[in-house]
Formats: sequence, C-alpha cells, structure tokens
Amino acid sequence: MDVFVTGASMLKVDKYYENGLLDLAVASVSGLEDLLSEKRPDALILASGYGESTEEQVQLAGKLSNALGYSVPAIRVENGDASGGSAVFSAYSLVKSGLAKSVLVVGVEKLADFPASQLNEIIARNLDEEFSYRAGVVPQAYAAIMMKLYMKRYNLPREYFSEWPYHMHRYAAENNYAFLRFPVEKDTILESQVISDPLRLFDTAARADGASAVLISSDEVARKVSETPVKIEGVRFSSTGMNLRELLSVRDVMNEMRDFRPDFYEVHDSYSVIAAMILDELGLERGKSLYSLDDLAVNYSGGLKARGYPGGATGIYQVAEGFMQLTESFKGRRVNGARKGLIISMDELGTTAVSVALSR
Amino acid sequence: MDVFVTGASMLKVDKYYENGLLDLAVASVSGLEDLLSEKRPDALILASGYGESTEEQVQLAGKLSNALGYSVPAIRVENGDASGGSAVFSAYSLVKSGLAKSVLVVGVEKLADFPASQLNEIIARNLDEEFSYRAGVVPQAYAAIMMKLYMKRYNLPREYFSEWPYHMHRYAAENNYAFLRFPVEKDTILESQVISDPLRLFDTAARADGASAVLISSDEVARKVSETPVKIEGVRFSSTGMNLRELLSVRDVMNEMRDFRPDFYEVHDSYSVIAAMILDELGLERGKSLYSLDDLAVNYSGGLKARGYPGGATGIYQVAEGFMQLTESFKGRRVNGARKGLIISMDELGTTAVSVALSR
Repeated sequence: MDVFVTGASMLKVDKYYENGLLDLAVASVSGLEDLLSEKRPDALILASGYGESTEEQVQLAGKLSNALGYSVPAIRVENGDASGGSAVFSAYSLVKSGLAKSVLVVGVEKLADFPASQLNEIIARNLDEEFSYRAGVVPQAYAAIMMKLYMKRYNLPREYFSEWPYHMHRYAAENNYAFLRFPVEKDTILESQVISDPLRLFDTAARADGASAVLISSDEVARKVSETPVKIEGVRFSSTGMNLRELLSVRDVMNEMRDFRPDFYEVHDSYSVIAAMILDELGLERGKSLYSLDDLAVNYSGGLKARGYPGGATGIYQVAEGFMQLTESFKGRRVNGARKGLIISMDELGTTAVSVALSR
Repeated sequence: MDVFVTGASMLKVDKYYENGLLDLAVASVSGLEDLLSEKRPDALILASGYGESTEEQVQLAGKLSNALGYSVPAIRVENGDASGGSAVFSAYSLVKSGLAKSVLVVGVEKLADFPASQLNEIIARNLDEEFSYRAGVVPQAYAAIMMKLYMKRYNLPREYFSEWPYHMHRYAAENNYAFLRFPVEKDTILESQVISDPLRLFDTAARADGASAVLISSDEVARKVSETPVKIEGVRFSSTGMNLRELLSVRDVMNEMRDFRPDFYEVHDSYSVIAAMILDELGLERGKSLYSLDDLAVNYSGGLKARGYPGGATGIYQVAEGFMQLTESFKGRRVNGARKGLIISMDELGTTAVSVALSR
C-alpha cells in the first residue's frame, strides 16, 4: 500500500497571544478545506509536545476532532519535539494498515506566551527525570557541553558555528511563514547574548507559536483528491537515549535510507552544534559540514533558528515544507526541479529521530 | 493480517510513593521478560494521560525504550483516560500495516501522590478549556448532572446506583491486582461522603498508581512465542464530544460490533452513572441495566471503582485482564469457558470510546 501526502497547510510561525492551542489547530486545518470537503478524514493525529504544561489541556485530539465536526479516531502523539515526526509515523501506519484511507495530521504548539525561565523548566521535562530534571539541569547546558566537545574534537573556533544562523536567517527572510524574517550579520551572531558558554542566543532555536496540518492518504484517495500527491517513500524511527558526542538516532535512520538521494533536507536544528552533527550524519565531512551549506539545500525554511521553533509541531511544518517544495508551492526559497526531499524530525538533544522520505 | 495479544502483565493497582513513572513502567514489563527475550519488540507504545502534569515528564516513551535497552520506535499516546485504548489502537495499526511484528504496549500512571484538590485540577484538563476548565468546573460536577438527569429520566432512586459499587467491591475482593480488595455493604455506599450531590464517594473511581503491559503481535510471532495467543477481532474508535444524556461514543463503537457476542466485558466505570449508561448501550434494558449485574460478567476485575483507576493506564489493565480471562490465568473471579471478551476504554465522561474485541 503506497502512502501519500496529499495536502499541506501552515500558519506563519509567530506569537499568537490571543489564540489558544485549539484555535491555532483549527486555523491551520482551514487551509485544507477544499481537500477535506472532497474526502473527510478517517482519523486525526495531533502532534503536541507541551500542551499539558503550557495550556493545561489533555485530550486535545478529541477536542479538535469535535471542533472540526468529526467523530473519527483522534489521538494525540507526544514525543517532545519529535512529536511531529512521530505523528506522521502513526498516520503512515494507519493508512498502510488499511484502518484509514486518509488521516489528518495536525501539529500545534504555543511557546511564545512564557518567560524563558518558565519555558526552560517545561522543555527540561525532556531530560532524564532523576539525574537531570530534578537536579535543575536545562537542555541548553547539555547543548553547551556538546558544543565544547565538538569544538575540541575537530579543533574548531567559535566562528565555525556562525555559518548555521547566518544561512538560516538568509533563508527565513524569503519564507512567508517564518518567524524571524530578517538576515543577520556574522558579527551580530558572534556577539549575541551568552546562554550557556559557548552557546549564544543565535545558536538556539526561536521559540514561537505555530500550527501546521498535512493530509496523509492512500493511493486511491490521493489520486482522487490531489493533482500533485507526494509519495512517502518511507518513515524510519530510532530512539537511542542521550549521547553528547554522537547523534546515534540520526545515524540509525540515515543508515536505513542510504539509497535515497534527496534534493533537499529539512532537519531539526535545535542548536547550531546539533545542526552540524546532523549534517555530519548526512555524509558530509565531519567537522567541516557547515562549510557546505552553499552546496546543499538544507532548511530553506530557515529552520528552527529562524523559521522558528513551535515545539512538537515542528515536524509537521517540516513535512508541509517538503510537500510544498516538491509541488512548487513553497512561499520561500525554492529547490529547482526537486524530486526528492528528506525530513528529519527530532527531539531537542537527538535522543529520538524520525525521518520521512518524500518524492513526487 | 491477523493481530494477537501474546502476553500481558500488570502491577497491583496501589500507592507507590517511592517509585516514579519510569520505575513502574519497567516493573510492569518485567512480567513479560520470557516473551520479550524470545522476540524483541519492534516498537513501543506508551499510554499515559497525565505524566506531564503529575511528574513533569515528556518523551517518556523514548526513556522507557532506552531503559529497556531498545532503540525502537517509541511513542507516547495521550487521550486522557482513553490513552490505554488509543495505545492499543496504535499498536494494532502498526502490526496490521506490517511496520512492526511485535509491539510492546505499556500503560502507566501515578495518581496516588496528590491531594484531591490538585488531582481534580489535573483531571479537569480533560474538559473544554474555555467554558469548563478556566471556569473552574471539575468533571465530578458534570457527572453529578448526568446522574440527576438519569434519575429523572428513568424515575430512579439514589439506591439504584449502589448496585455498581456493591458488585465491583465484591469482585475486587477476589482480584490479586486490585486496589480496594474488600466488599462493602450497601448502607456504607449510601452513607458515603457527598462529592457533588447526588454523587457520593462510592460512585467515583479509586484514583491510584499502576502500570500494565501487553504484547501485541502478528500471527507469525504469536505462533512462535505463545501457546495461548488471544486474537484481536477488531478495534473500534469514536470521539464524539461531551453529551450529558447519552454516551454516543459507546453507542458508535457498539453499533459497529453488533455481531460480536462477548462472554464478558471490561468497561470504564468512571462513575456509577456512567457504568449504568455503558450497560444501557450494551443492549440491556435502559434504566434497569444495573439490576442485571448478576446475569452478566462485567468488570470481574472490580473496575475503576475497586480494582482502581490508574488514569491513562486503565485501558491496558483492561486488555491485560481480558487476555488473562481468555487464557485462564486471571488471578480473580473467572468467567468459565470464556471465548470472547469486549474491552471498552474511555475517557472520564465518555467523549471518546475505544473498543477492543478479543477472542481465543
């Protein structure tokens, strides 16, 4: 059974102080109205990492299904920031099993309403409870250690990592849906606020609100409702536990798709060092991969850095962006003649990775 | 592709003040050690409704996978109290799609560590955010209204509902894994503390800690690892939104399985009035169904009332109990010669229902 992405929709990543999770989710689905009126979905998967903490809401999937006028199976999938990829995996499984012909997958998160200290606490819930969270460690501290280890291992200066935010902001400036739509100079990056030495503000993701929706369908439905369906060639999933020196989860999923040669990538750049480590796993020269950014189409969205980081909804944005690239409808920098794209959805520190291979 | 439950394990529902969610989850899986050593699972689904609020933990599925030494796809499914049934639905889909041959499904929840006021707030997150949760309404208030409406509609006295806790406690007294292992007199029930008039303490579920695990496998794996596999005849899923007079979600799933004639049921008796309404949907005479409890094998576990109510793990307990009944390994009241059982996993007020039909 072949499985397709038949439509995609997203809200601009932004601050939506006046809208709740359900409002944003409903708004993101409205972009698929035409498709959904042709074929109502048989199931709904909601990706949200932190709604229970940020908005005191559980059972949000059922509430969304109800708000949309459906009474279909509705499930929230939570895997921290990897919720998006995990939701796509679940939807892929539902279509492949024949239990559903068309699954509406919605990612939603609100991270803009909170002061950094409160959000740090919420995001820290991703960490091991006993040894990290209860000890008051936040993920930025681990990212800083990863960065130090990486700099030492490859004998790199701090400047090396500026390549990432520099490129991401250039791309985001062209993306209508991006949060931070402006380019930055390398000096600005180097002089930005220290978060946890050597990690600076521009090495981190831009926390924001967002919602995005994709429709995942069987070939039968795809042929009926879409002139430009995008095939899901495969979904790979690995959860390896934390490792400060290697992104084993990304290595796992990449090993399983060595034969897939994508024209572009959307990856989870939670920190610039993590972006570098992901690029290393894509087969570029380790410790030098950030110098290849001009030769490779990576994160033309602007990435978490500048398109913005809407928590567990990020993976749905990535898949939507991949769909739009392949159907030449992306409102930002395009990859000319792209036939294949690879999405890597991850949690913040790379303990879990989900890859989604798309082709048209 | 036929799908089977090949093993089940559970902890006694209880208060585990010294153990966290991960500890309990790991402990529940240890009961499946022999099975898992024969065939490692290809995926892990974790059902937990409130871990983000009660223990400040996200990404618990990946952490559990890691703690067990796996690096397989690991996903948490959250649907409030219906998380258990939703997780079984997800696992069923993974096996049916061929993406996994064997899926470990673990339910875990900790509700015993909290004073009632705090837990009321957490459970209230199931309600509509704008009109209920932010207004300070707790689910017990809605349950009380449902009870009043039901009493008026069928012209019933308060005593009618005592049938439910009376039977549940009798059953739980025989169940080694139950939380409240003692019978109660009807007078005790009638005179118990008023929670929200006419709802009394014995009309509500016994909040507790618990963890349970089931292994869901393809026929190929089932034949290999189990001498007593239990077939999943089907999983039905409906999410309808709240309705104080009718359990439309349960009606939906029952309508879809009219031909399945179970020898026993395990249903989600969050309140005695909800138990009555579920029984009404099973085809018994409406407004009189609680008088049929001696003629019907319902909740020999003791139900949420007396086996105890471990939040989103409840559905996994139910499936485990169903498996144990059918394989004659249940350590409690048995259903003689049972060949078929029906599980109804629900959220607290019946907006979502998932039915799992089991046979051997």
